[in-house]
Amino acid sequence: MTYRFSQKISALKPSAIREILKAASVPGLISFAAGNPAPEAFPVDEVREITAQILAENPIPALQYGVTEGYEPLIDTVRDWLREDYNVGGEGDAVIITSGAQQVMDLACKVLCDEGDTVLCEDPSFIGSLNCFRAYNAKLVGIPIEPDGLNLNALENALKSGKNIRFLYTIPNFQNPTGATMSLQKRRAVYALAQKYDLIILEDNPYGDLRVTGEDIPAIKTMDSDGRVIYAGSFSKILAPGLRAGFCIAPAEISAKMTVGKQTGDVHTSMLTQLIVYNWLTRHDVRAHIAKIRAVYRRKLNLMCDLLDEKLSGFFTYVRPQGGLFVWGSLPQGTDMLSYCRACTEKCVAIVPGSAFLADQNGTTNCVRLNFSTPTDEQIRAGVKLMREAADDI
Amino acid sequence: MTYRFSQKISALKPSAIREILKAASVPGLISFAAGNPAPEAFPVDEVREITAQILAENPIPALQYGVTEGYEPLIDTVRDWLREDYNVGGEGDAVIITSGAQQVMDLACKVLCDEGDTVLCEDPSFIGSLNCFRAYNAKLVGIPIEPDGLNLNALENALKSGKNIRFLYTIPNFQNPTGATMSLQKRRAVYALAQKYDLIILEDNPYGDLRVTGEDIPAIKTMDSDGRVIYAGSFSKILAPGLRAGFCIAPAEISAKMTVGKQTGDVHTSMLTQLIVYNWLTRHDVRAHIAKIRAVYRRKLNLMCDLLDEKLSGFFTYVRPQGGLFVWGSLPQGTDMLSYCRACTEKCVAIVPGSAFLADQNGTTNCVRLNFSTPTDEQIRAGVKLMREAADDI
Repeated sequence: MTYRFSQKISALKPSAIREILKAASVPGLISFAAGNPAPEAFPVDEVREITAQILAENPIPALQYGVTEGYEPLIDTVRDWLREDYNVGGEGDAVIITSGAQQVMDLACKVLCDEGDTVLCEDPSFIGSLNCFRAYNAKLVGIPIEPDGLNLNALENALKSGKNIRFLYTIPNFQNPTGATMSLQKRRAVYALAQKYDLIILEDNPYGDLRVTGEDIPAIKTMDSDGRVIYAGSFSKILAPGLRAGFCIAPAEISAKMTVGKQTGDVHTSMLTQLIVYNWLTRHDVRAHIAKIRAVYRRKLNLMCDLLDEKLSGFFTYVRPQGGLFVWGSLPQGTDMLSYCRACTEKCVAIVPGSAFLADQNGTTNCVRLNFSTPTDEQIRAGVKLMREAADDI
Repeated sequence: MTYRFSQKISALKPSAIREILKAASVPGLISFAAGNPAPEAFPVDEVREITAQILAENPIPALQYGVTEGYEPLIDTVRDWLREDYNVGGEGDAVIITSGAQQVMDLACKVLCDEGDTVLCEDPSFIGSLNCFRAYNAKLVGIPIEPDGLNLNALENALKSGKNIRFLYTIPNFQNPTGATMSLQKRRAVYALAQKYDLIILEDNPYGDLRVTGEDIPAIKTMDSDGRVIYAGSFSKILAPGLRAGFCIAPAEISAKMTVGKQTGDVHTSMLTQLIVYNWLTRHDVRAHIAKIRAVYRRKLNLMCDLLDEKLSGFFTYVRPQGGLFVWGSLPQGTDMLSYCRACTEKCVAIVPGSAFLADQNGTTNCVRLNFSTPTDEQIRAGVKLMREAADDI
């Protein structure tokens, strides 16, 4: 029979990256295309020990239904941790535990946007979030991003002229895909613009703990005197993504609506996952763990960037990021970006076409995104060499 | 500040049942209000052993990102299991692994319904699903349910007169809340009507394995020669709900769209959960386990129903279900249903007002829902006694 799909889902293409991820499982292909955290940074022994203890001592809470907001002791722990370590969250805020940070984007859009409403986003931005907003039939308006964050003039112009703008989506730290970090000055200016135009900000911070150089910059949420920031965090990068654990801290009224949305979506996040995260946060030294994994990411980021400087100087132009998972760069004028990506695949190294990340699905760019966290050091060395060969061939 | 929420979420109330569940955690309160499976039916030792082995032998796949459709060996296992044990699924179908069966309802509605489209449902029906459809701004049209399933005349009239009907939502086995099971004859008639009116059927079967008497009846999906049935299954009742594992088998084209929807919702279901389910299905005798837990449910169902017959005959009128988790019954004419529920809560036994399950949120009924799987045998005895006292008091 012939199926009729909803308008919102009909227009949506599967994520180019996840399709490439599938291709990247071809034996021998080196993938700079993924966004996976470094598996050597997972605290495997701790997770094994914690899980064994949960299932030995008090298994039923890990296996029975829970409440939608999340496991209460975990909510309290996350709230205290955010306040103490990041100065994030105030009296009017409430935490909910989500099935990964992706679900925060889904729930925020669900509760804030009717079909046809506008979402402002950095351009380029994380395709998973952009597709999430598209799946609610939101209209995306991209604001160009610079090495120190959003272009403020473009943001104010969009706010002045836009209709039914429901929120601004931003990744201030080591943005995906550009690696750009928004300066403190710009964070303050963005918050001031949000106040001026009565705008809600959805601040997505999956990579903040993965800084490898420079000083941490306070989250926009730390400036949230009005209750206009929804802050999304993730355990995917500091613990393990396969567990699907994230969280949201937002004004209590918004969190309550998001909880209603989550109840109809997946009832609650896996209790086993939540108990693992709770025990990990309370029984292990998370700060020490973050310092340890920063060293892993620092080594890999510098290895890739040093090799890019050595082998691809003049061909791949980029700003070295201060953290995160990605390096974003442009190809020389006149080089066809998609042809270069295909040439790389033929050489057995996968990279992501920058066009995948544009707010306008028909837009063009000569940029590409590279990931340094998933490949091994050896694969980074071999892959950059193959990128050089592909550059020479086209 | 004042928040503006989407129309679809503004109208939605938190599930009355989950609110009651929270109240039911008051010490001393006996809850007949939950829908939790019996914890004594969880295969705790098996889960402990499987999980230890996963995290000892090959932990990275359990902790790293996976693909959206689900862990491939689990998909294959579920497909074979459905075909062999239930005669469900054909060549044109594809399985996806979901974060509980609730997510199947969410994804089906997301891919099939634009705002304002119509969903047909049994009336009363499972509030979690009804709220899920409401959260996409779908219009619900309820079809009265009888002890042997949907009223066929009402269904055909709705199909004749309705506009933009996208699917029929049905729970054919031990329906929530009524406990009704659709007869084989009606299943065939419903499928024939779906053919006549080119209708998609969303068949939700969370309780099918919990039959305590009588013969299993083939799923509507077994009759699906056209590819018009989306079948939702759950590991919540036969394994453990806290893991949040469910699945969907649907025509491949629909599954592909649902996968796109899931990608933007939660990326994929917990890999640790998926590996636990995979190992449980492949290394343990699932049929033997189901036979074992049926004995648990049989004892509890009969205990509650025998006591209801003894203590509440003439006050609580019901048809004894052949399985599932719930007993649904009506109060005498002239008894105010909500007053009786409140009187029960005052006596320290929680039951659910039947009005929570109506397609029309403003509808009325003199029915209530009782659950026998969560309370202990002792609590069932004490709770029915308290229900009698409440009946005498009002």
